[in-house]
Amino acid sequence: MALTIGVDVGGTKVAGGVVDDTGRILVRARRDTPADDVAKTRDVIIEVVTELATGRLVQAVGIGAAGWIDATRSTVLFAPNLAWRDEPLRAYVSRAVGLPVIVENDGNVAAWAEFRYGAGRDAEDSMVMFTIGTGVGGGIVLGGALLRGANGIAAELGHMLTVPDGHQCGCGRLGCIEQYASGSALVRFARAAARQEPHRATALLELAGGEAEAITGPMVTAAAQGGDPVSAEAFAQVGRWLGTSLADMAQILDPQVLVVGGGVVEAGELLMGPTRRSYQAALAQRCRLPVAEVRPAELGNAAGVIGAADLARRL
Amino acid sequence: MALTIGVDVGGTKVAGGVVDDTGRILVRARRDTPADDVAKTRDVIIEVVTELATGRLVQAVGIGAAGWIDATRSTVLFAPNLAWRDEPLRAYVSRAVGLPVIVENDGNVAAWAEFRYGAGRDAEDSMVMFTIGTGVGGGIVLGGALLRGANGIAAELGHMLTVPDGHQCGCGRLGCIEQYASGSALVRFARAAARQEPHRATALLELAGGEAEAITGPMVTAAAQGGDPVSAEAFAQVGRWLGTSLADMAQILDPQVLVVGGGVVEAGELLMGPTRRSYQAALAQRCRLPVAEVRPAELGNAAGVIGAADLARRL
Amino acid sequence: MALTIGVDVGGTKVAGGVVDDTGRILVRARRDTPADDVAKTRDVIIEVVTELATGRLVQAVGIGAAGWIDATRSTVLFAPNLAWRDEPLRAYVSRAVGLPVIVENDGNVAAWAEFRYGAGRDAEDSMVMFTIGTGVGGGIVLGGALLRGANGIAAELGHMLTVPDGHQCGCGRLGCIEQYASGSALVRFARAAARQEPHRATALLELAGGEAEAITGPMVTAAAQGGDPVSAEAFAQVGRWLGTSLADMAQILDPQVLVVGGGVVEAGELLMGPTRRSYQAALAQRCRLPVAEVRPAELGNAAGVIGAADLARRL
Amino acid sequence: MALTIGVDVGGTKVAGGVVDDTGRILVRARRDTPADDVAKTRDVIIEVVTELATGRLVQAVGIGAAGWIDATRSTVLFAPNLAWRDEPLRAYVSRAVGLPVIVENDGNVAAWAEFRYGAGRDAEDSMVMFTIGTGVGGGIVLGGALLRGANGIAAELGHMLTVPDGHQCGCGRLGCIEQYASGSALVRFARAAARQEPHRATALLELAGGEAEAITGPMVTAAAQGGDPVSAEAFAQVGRWLGTSLADMAQILDPQVLVVGGGVVEAGELLMGPTRRSYQAALAQRCRLPVAEVRPAELGNAAGVIGAADLARRL
Repeated sequence: MALTIGVDVGGTKVAGGVVDDTGRILVRARRDTPADDVAKTRDVIIEVVTELATGRLVQAVGIGAAGWIDATRSTVLFAPNLAWRDEPLRAYVSRAVGLPVIVENDGNVAAWAEFRYGAGRDAEDSMVMFTIGTGVGGGIVLGGALLRGANGIAAELGHMLTVPDGHQCGCGRLGCIEQYASGSALVRFARAAARQEPHRATALLELAGGEAEAITGPMVTAAAQGGDPVSAEAFAQVGRWLGTSLADMAQILDPQVLVVGGGVVEAGELLMGPTRRSYQAALAQRCRLPVAEVRPAELGNAAGVIGAADLARRL
Repeated sequence: MALTIGVDVGGTKVAGGVVDDTGRILVRARRDTPADDVAKTRDVIIEVVTELATGRLVQAVGIGAAGWIDATRSTVLFAPNLAWRDEPLRAYVSRAVGLPVIVENDGNVAAWAEFRYGAGRDAEDSMVMFTIGTGVGGGIVLGGALLRGANGIAAELGHMLTVPDGHQCGCGRLGCIEQYASGSALVRFARAAARQEPHRATALLELAGGEAEAITGPMVTAAAQGGDPVSAEAFAQVGRWLGTSLADMAQILDPQVLVVGGGVVEAGELLMGPTRRSYQAALAQRCRLPVAEVRPAELGNAAGVIGAADLARRL
Repeated sequence: MALTIGVDVGGTKVAGGVVDDTGRILVRARRDTPADDVAKTRDVIIEVVTELATGRLVQAVGIGAAGWIDATRSTVLFAPNLAWRDEPLRAYVSRAVGLPVIVENDGNVAAWAEFRYGAGRDAEDSMVMFTIGTGVGGGIVLGGALLRGANGIAAELGHMLTVPDGHQCGCGRLGCIEQYASGSALVRFARAAARQEPHRATALLELAGGEAEAITGPMVTAAAQGGDPVSAEAFAQVGRWLGTSLADMAQILDPQVLVVGGGVVEAGELLMGPTRRSYQAALAQRCRLPVAEVRPAELGNAAGVIGAADLARRL
Repeated sequence: MALTIGVDVGGTKVAGGVVDDTGRILVRARRDTPADDVAKTRDVIIEVVTELATGRLVQAVGIGAAGWIDATRSTVLFAPNLAWRDEPLRAYVSRAVGLPVIVENDGNVAAWAEFRYGAGRDAEDSMVMFTIGTGVGGGIVLGGALLRGANGIAAELGHMLTVPDGHQCGCGRLGCIEQYASGSALVRFARAAARQEPHRATALLELAGGEAEAITGPMVTAAAQGGDPVSAEAFAQVGRWLGTSLADMAQILDPQVLVVGGGVVEAGELLMGPTRRSYQAALAQRCRLPVAEVRPAELGNAAGVIGAADLARRL
């Protein structure tokens, strides 16, 4: 049985795993990310791969990272949370560990994992996935393969324009979907509501020690699940915008399945309910025609390792 | 040399042509569309095909029409400007003329023509095209083929959300791009400006006999080309929104080429200048990376016939 | 007891009444409006006044009309539904009937009637009223008097900007509140929903003979009152925007009372419920402070006659 | 000649002055604000007043502060930058210094100063002023007096809704004008542009030591005046939104004069040019009618002291 290694390089941790050809993770390894040191981040990746590969017949290595990857899947052109700029990661790691390596954008990696082994495993042709983390990432599968784009930078779904002149995005524009359907937006909505209507947000504010500015994403999830109305409304706001963008994907790509992933999915129907209602309302004029079902992701955090390993298998 | 026939079924005319394998139209035929009579519209198509096929070795027939076509390219599920509802057009025409037939959405047909023989002929892999007519149509080529979608209804680009709570769209939603970057929007912008600032719109109002409500698209084009500032601004407004949607396409699909077609393209730089500026501004954060060039379509009205014929060749 | 006459000049009818100093209408008269004939419209007003004044001790005449009135309340500068342009209405009518005359904008007249005898009669200082007809009119009472403005044109509330780049307004701008909180908007919302979701709008469509384009305001009201969900949502949309503008009025003017008038008020809580919720949400950050109550108007159509007569009493 | 004292209580300094009945400041005093200590802030105000009043015949004291003041101008209900909550400032200071005291909102104070002695001194009846600082404040003069509102909280112009679902405001809502036409917005626009297009923002980035996040308002002003295009565009964005809100004021209140004050006014035509163009465009449909002129404030920082002193004179 051929094994491959997947590595998920995040802003705070490097997680790796040995994965078999059914998408199962057999062994795991994990290190902190020395995020602001280019050389050390590479070394930590190599450590993780070396630890996992030792004593096993490993065929190839896949690495997923947030950022723009060049069209040959070799070089990280730009990574927002790491110090990499035009970093030839594939060549460096491959030389160090003596195995074939592929580098892929983390949103693409997660989408691929869900397409192969998760929420989209019954789709044989097409799937679009939004990954809702601090920001919004995306991945598009068409014709049974990841859409990479002419320059390697397709599926940058977080920067679709959503509200003209809307909230300032880190990218410089006003009104990207990342400012309305991300974990950051969830927290911003919840903090604002807690400042505006503290008497309705007592449960949430209690978790935050009484300080609206101390509210975090996990607090909003916990409070919402406990019945806090302000937290539930914050999820509903995110869902409303997310549903709109999912509808745009249906209009543009008409995929078999639409998937929503990332940490916020743990909130379950608190997020997915408003998301589906907004999606269906936006597509009401197509009501006689079939449209893609919207589903939550199934693989959670493991999607990064599983997807990267599975892409390496296809090298 | 194998010949195919392309038929472009519009709301006011049925245009057909015999096309060779270099995309050249050898012979043409044309009839008025009896738009509100299902049976007569079919008969007119058959008349056009019969006229063109008689005395020639024709391999197949392609028909392009505005509307939703089913995934097998056989049945028109819904056509906004014609009376067709679940119309089995392929079977009907094929039986009548004794040739293989394919039915395709008109936005897809035009995109295919431009990809093969027009503004995108140097692209071998991917292209996205917006067709700006009364409404906004679209076509997406990926991997060298039209993207048809899981249900046959991909590339409905006119109904991407652009302005939340914006102008009411015929589809029932508020704020679709069709309400901001179409020929109808151009006329609406120009009429409004002429009512609001008649002293600046004298050239345009003269063409319209002094009545803002009598302004038409061709008048706006003519006045803009003659230097009328109000008409030029109407084109700039359309271009501003169009550039935003083209940027969304670059973010989502990262194609090799982006094409703008439809009658408004005759306005040249009056439309394309503002479109490109808005596109570039929206993608400024990607300035170090290559992005698709935005080009005007090259085939004009002939795209419908050429594209349909070329798709028929691939049957 | 001193009597005055009020005349309400609408686009379709001229209604007059003799009013006593408690705001009661003692006698009425009514004619059709010859809207496109300047001279005839004046003559009809004079006929109505003459009929009402004959055999009664009448002190003065007040005339309310849609349009811009000059700062001396003498001349109609512009009337959107009538042919008047710089029409010296006060001088003309006064000369003809031998009584003092005042001319006032219809939104101001209605606000004054409600302030004196209707929903704002307990307010001694300030009130703002939105009149929701085909368009949106307004009237502002401050310091116990109508706010007329430096040029006579204050309280043009219908043309506050609500949605940047939103629905095209008749005035030439995009996104005035008149496009979101008027009777026209109600019908537009309802028609769109009926086209988009015909299966949910069966009750409404039945009233309209199956044609979405045949839906009228009274049909939406009737259907909403009968439980039609699509019609109720159309009222909720209007209410949502209206509540936002009422909140702006509270932020800008902090009046004692806010009043909503016009035909749509007959829908009762279907309109007022969503309006109040939107208003309160927009002012949530002021929750510890008192803000004006939002009330429906009480005088209905009679406000035009009563208000004009009462203003004439103050000449 | 009767003298009064004006005190301007800001978040960082308490400035006082003795003012004569022509609006001239004869003597000044100044202390740092101990912003987070309620009792100390009161004591500093008393120190400033005592220093100024000693040895002079002073008639009364006016105090201006950011926040909501109750309808009797006695109690600070809430101050965003100070620790005051339901602070009976009038009674406290009056008792301590033995003089009549009035407390007024800082936006109102500045508007009053400009109406009496500055940009609005030729208006005898009405004026609206926007004060553009970190946030957006406002003051409205109607009938020759400040509009205070039924609850003392009129002219909260910073929280008019401008962009539905727009940038999150500190007040909890999305899209208040304070997020689009304030000093904070100016900096946000400039930082975003510097991140997005660093090559065009070299002059501005040089002032900020190369760091977009280090850009401040004074840097944007300096760079804009030196010809930096990115900084000029940031002012133009602020002006575009400000012009829209000024137009709303003309539609609602039709005042004699509109004034723009606050630190950003130092940028001169860089701000006022785009502001006036946006204002005129929004009112184009009223082009035949007179509308208020838009002017920059004339008194600068001194408006707080002069206005408070002049209001005290009217006690």
